[in-house]
Amino acid sequence: MVSFESDYITGAHPRILQRLSETNLECLSGYGADRYCESAKEKIKKACGCPDAEVAFLTGGTQTNAVVIASMLKDYEGVVAAATGHISVHEAGAVEYSGHKVLEIPHKEGKLEPASLKRYLDAFYADENREHMVFPGMVYISYPTEYGTLYTKDELAQLAGICRQFQIPLYLDGARLGYGLMSLQNDLELADIAKLCDVFYIGGTKIGALCGEAVVFTGGSQPRHFLTSVKKRGALLAKGRLLGIQFDTLFTNGLYFEISRHAIAMAERMKDVFHQTKVPFYLESPTNQQFVLLDQRRRKALSERVRFSFWEKYDEGCIVARFATSWSTKEEEILELREVLEGC
Amino acid sequence: MVSFESDYITGAHPRILQRLSETNLECLSGYGADRYCESAKEKIKKACGCPDAEVAFLTGGTQTNAVVIASMLKDYEGVVAAATGHISVHEAGAVEYSGHKVLEIPHKEGKLEPASLKRYLDAFYADENREHMVFPGMVYISYPTEYGTLYTKDELAQLAGICRQFQIPLYLDGARLGYGLMSLQNDLELADIAKLCDVFYIGGTKIGALCGEAVVFTGGSQPRHFLTSVKKRGALLAKGRLLGIQFDTLFTNGLYFEISRHAIAMAERMKDVFHQTKVPFYLESPTNQQFVLLDQRRRKALSERVRFSFWEKYDEGCIVARFATSWSTKEEEILELREVLEGC
Amino acid sequence: MVSFESDYITGAHPRILQRLSETNLECLSGYGADRYCESAKEKIKKACGCPDAEVAFLTGGTQTNAVVIASMLKDYEGVVAAATGHISVHEAGAVEYSGHKVLEIPHKEGKLEPASLKRYLDAFYADENREHMVFPGMVYISYPTEYGTLYTKDELAQLAGICRQFQIPLYLDGARLGYGLMSLQNDLELADIAKLCDVFYIGGTKIGALCGEAVVFTGGSQPRHFLTSVKKRGALLAKGRLLGIQFDTLFTNGLYFEISRHAIAMAERMKDVFHQTKVPFYLESPTNQQFVLLDQRRRKALSERVRFSFWEKYDEGCIVARFATSWSTKEEEILELREVLEGC
Amino acid sequence: MVSFESDYITGAHPRILQRLSETNLECLSGYGADRYCESAKEKIKKACGCPDAEVAFLTGGTQTNAVVIASMLKDYEGVVAAATGHISVHEAGAVEYSGHKVLEIPHKEGKLEPASLKRYLDAFYADENREHMVFPGMVYISYPTEYGTLYTKDELAQLAGICRQFQIPLYLDGARLGYGLMSLQNDLELADIAKLCDVFYIGGTKIGALCGEAVVFTGGSQPRHFLTSVKKRGALLAKGRLLGIQFDTLFTNGLYFEISRHAIAMAERMKDVFHQTKVPFYLESPTNQQFVLLDQRRRKALSERVRFSFWEKYDEGCIVARFATSWSTKEEEILELREVLEGC
Repeated sequence: MVSFESDYITGAHPRILQRLSETNLECLSGYGADRYCESAKEKIKKACGCPDAEVAFLTGGTQTNAVVIASMLKDYEGVVAAATGHISVHEAGAVEYSGHKVLEIPHKEGKLEPASLKRYLDAFYADENREHMVFPGMVYISYPTEYGTLYTKDELAQLAGICRQFQIPLYLDGARLGYGLMSLQNDLELADIAKLCDVFYIGGTKIGALCGEAVVFTGGSQPRHFLTSVKKRGALLAKGRLLGIQFDTLFTNGLYFEISRHAIAMAERMKDVFHQTKVPFYLESPTNQQFVLLDQRRRKALSERVRFSFWEKYDEGCIVARFATSWSTKEEEILELREVLEGC
Repeated sequence: MVSFESDYITGAHPRILQRLSETNLECLSGYGADRYCESAKEKIKKACGCPDAEVAFLTGGTQTNAVVIASMLKDYEGVVAAATGHISVHEAGAVEYSGHKVLEIPHKEGKLEPASLKRYLDAFYADENREHMVFPGMVYISYPTEYGTLYTKDELAQLAGICRQFQIPLYLDGARLGYGLMSLQNDLELADIAKLCDVFYIGGTKIGALCGEAVVFTGGSQPRHFLTSVKKRGALLAKGRLLGIQFDTLFTNGLYFEISRHAIAMAERMKDVFHQTKVPFYLESPTNQQFVLLDQRRRKALSERVRFSFWEKYDEGCIVARFATSWSTKEEEILELREVLEGC
Repeated sequence: MVSFESDYITGAHPRILQRLSETNLECLSGYGADRYCESAKEKIKKACGCPDAEVAFLTGGTQTNAVVIASMLKDYEGVVAAATGHISVHEAGAVEYSGHKVLEIPHKEGKLEPASLKRYLDAFYADENREHMVFPGMVYISYPTEYGTLYTKDELAQLAGICRQFQIPLYLDGARLGYGLMSLQNDLELADIAKLCDVFYIGGTKIGALCGEAVVFTGGSQPRHFLTSVKKRGALLAKGRLLGIQFDTLFTNGLYFEISRHAIAMAERMKDVFHQTKVPFYLESPTNQQFVLLDQRRRKALSERVRFSFWEKYDEGCIVARFATSWSTKEEEILELREVLEGC
Repeated sequence: MVSFESDYITGAHPRILQRLSETNLECLSGYGADRYCESAKEKIKKACGCPDAEVAFLTGGTQTNAVVIASMLKDYEGVVAAATGHISVHEAGAVEYSGHKVLEIPHKEGKLEPASLKRYLDAFYADENREHMVFPGMVYISYPTEYGTLYTKDELAQLAGICRQFQIPLYLDGARLGYGLMSLQNDLELADIAKLCDVFYIGGTKIGALCGEAVVFTGGSQPRHFLTSVKKRGALLAKGRLLGIQFDTLFTNGLYFEISRHAIAMAERMKDVFHQTKVPFYLESPTNQQFVLLDQRRRKALSERVRFSFWEKYDEGCIVARFATSWSTKEEEILELREVLEGC
């Protein structure tokens, strides 16, 4: 059985496990005050071309979104997001749990369009009743989006421009950041993101780590006493080394980018397979997640040899299925998928 | 430099790292729905002598306290704790963040005395204004306490009896549970705890894991849709395997108890050293944390070779220092401590 | 200057002020434990044909929504509402402040359609990822809606049926309940609402009171220790008599219905005026709020003699304006409006 | 039956009811944007000798505390209060509901002593683990305290000095402010309070209003978009006039001070009665609340003619009882009390 169920089905990149073993008996201070966290932060800042950034490590994506958003919003503010945004739908209300509303606006293939954002913000500030409403206090986007799509450099610059005009921070959820950056259709570099966003995170969980996300605050955006805000939300890891060592490894000799590139190469092979076997796309994305339509016959054929994710019902006969590659996808797995699809 | 700074200064027990490596490339479902989580749960239930319990894995102690307490309290309730309780002092207000008050009552060497609890609850229900007050909706104790002290079986039974009388759950924070169970002065077994408490957790972070705590709900006390409550608080790990594999290893062939026993043996050796070198105790505990008074001379002597934790100022000349052993403490480290103390 | 700005521009019905004066020096217990609250509750239960209901008084609409919703939802739940619902838009995120999401679904003229609700709930329970999502734990509707529209008895019964099928309470926000019940197009009675909804409130602020809303819990739906939940949200009035006396007066000799009927009669006269003077309707409602389109010329003509509410921009030349009648609207005011509109 | 049960047992001062009647049919904008709120604010600023202050009206004391504290604290902060503070004990956890801890420290007769506060803050900033703790972000005191005691000008200045040293605001809960200011032992003026505190409120509910508290922010301390923060907590009154007219009346021709003075005169008469009849004091306060010890015989004698508040059990034979005077206490009521006590 091969699996394209998600990009977090395997453990960690072997080099990470190796480093965890090598450093295992060193006595290190807790809560992130250790040399590996320090080193990882330096490497990340360098990779971002942003020596003044501040970096903090958290354990998972929903946690990161909740902590960052809640600690940055003011009392009277909420966060603007696409209606399909991860925080809008699949985080069990973690932002609302912090007492703040997610202000949902329409999306296009998972993306927040600059024009929609502008319209929303203009309408808000034109509304005479706005003091009775939740103020838009931050803009959340995901990159790649939940549909695997990407913002172009121009689009990101437009969003950033609007945010600056309205003086609210732009926050980019990079749970799958590497897969976006290594996409063949991408025109953004990490340094562009660091320059255009006020805060973003570099996802580790889905790109080779056991767990862990690295938040990057640019332009002095890190809230004061952020460690206490993290602790208050139960998000401070006692053995901070677990996160430090992982990110230090990922950002040594470009491992993060190398394994991301591999996932993209596998995704491109997978797309070829779907094209060749005439599996219709629901959404052919430029990153590691592909959304295709599967009829009964194909589902049956796949069921015994290939795992994937049920996304939603499409019509009576078909479902939308998600196939994800990752840093650990092997060429044989793609071949297995082709074999099954060709055989039906 | 040897370190007794805390019990989370080293990585994981080597057998854990080995298991993580061995299972690393297996494709497993996320969010705890994998065979290792399943197996770990079964082993824990067996160790607790409690086949009907429900077990859930979380990442750290503060997170566990916040998630368990917040999801079990009713809207109008707070949690009763000793004024020295970890949730009262050192969790940055994580319980209050959930909208619930910690009702602090006096302690004795870190322990909540049954008589104090009874008095508090009686007074609450005798108060005519109680509807304007926070209802006591749960009792929180830590075992061992923040001072390394232990409840006897009789004391725990008394606390449990009072909780049952007032129909509120008893919750035991077992961040260092193994060190309590293996203490030479302990008369409680894991099964007693499972029988007397409505919910408790078995700490992993401080006893050989990289991270992770196992919550045990007895008597059907697990809140409905607990996974969603966990997710809502950013506490659901995507790669649940990281927790499952660790606890599965710790509860295979009694590893958890074996390494806890080692830490206690080391602590006993350490206490001997303090006695022999006439270092006065602030609190000589039966578990892995020892609190001693250090004067200037001894601090100076230690400063270059032995690390410990500053606890608080005692008087002009002295401080209270905490020395902790752990599963990874080595005999040589105790010898080093003795050497330094004898030399001054 | 006459004003149709809103239905809370004047003070209280004179009979209320009179009763406040008459009872002013009586010594009464605080927090709602007085004879007037008691009497008002009895009268309301009788008017609802629901002797087993429980009634509680709160001060304003947003407060009532927040307290009722937050104290009834379970930890993992949110409240379903039309995207135009008052709680979705104009309460500054008061529901989210309680840690719960408002699950917004499309509306039709401000109404939540039974079919949309059913579709939403079916889709939720069909979603394999639902444990990562906010559970729909209550349905919120307003009657009349924010657009002055009404649910028919049949529609309300359908919504109630769906809620019962999914075992979640149906909550009706009756900020303007009287104006709905007295509408010429209404086919619902107060007893129907009490029978079909699990909880609802009878608005006082907009119908003759200085402040105050009466929450009616039917079928044992009142949360335990509700008074403490109210207090916890800063919503418990020390001089509960202020609410009790007002509602006691409003429900004596049908005053509430009488003054609501008057507002409707005035609204019907107003609609005639708009028809006669050919002011186009944006939404001609069956209750006390009318939404019309005003061009520049008419706005200018009105500006010096008649106040109304700016609702939103319609197109370059026109705005949507809201005109509201209330218990205190006078016939002369309608005549003044006609005079101005006829003159332009 | 006469009643000294509390200072909110009667309605409003007659002049307030009269003004409500006189203005009843005026059409006024909602939410505090009316001329009476404006006028009341001006009068209050003048009475405070603080033309730059900002004033906001809220409905009740717990609400005011919760809104002010929650909107002023930073994410990582809590509020320091005496363990007997109203927010610590009798507000059902309203501050904690906002996600912030009340940091309780010992009291002396209900007062927070400057030395205790200093010690607490010094210890906090000396603690190496403080980043894991709740930062003290505001100091809350009540004046008069819950025991009717008062801070001297010197004590208040000391508290203010400490707050300034640590750069945290000092907040004074003036639910019974008038009774403090008019106390014969008081040496503080309203202008002193406005000068020494960063924010405080002038209580209306207990001093002649039906409801209402006036928050005074000095030195630019009002949080931005405070109205939205108020709305978000369900605390914004639609008919803001109800609060504006009441405070406008109370601050016209010194009514607030005149009626407060009356309550103090009545309290002094009451204290004489207790002295003359040899009723022992538990705490003889300089304000309108007196705490005495009542044995069985006296309780029986009082039970049919005089109401008071049970405070707590003192010993087997005695209880602590609270007797409160107010703006509406009549001389005959004091005489009645004397008659009963003399007769037993």
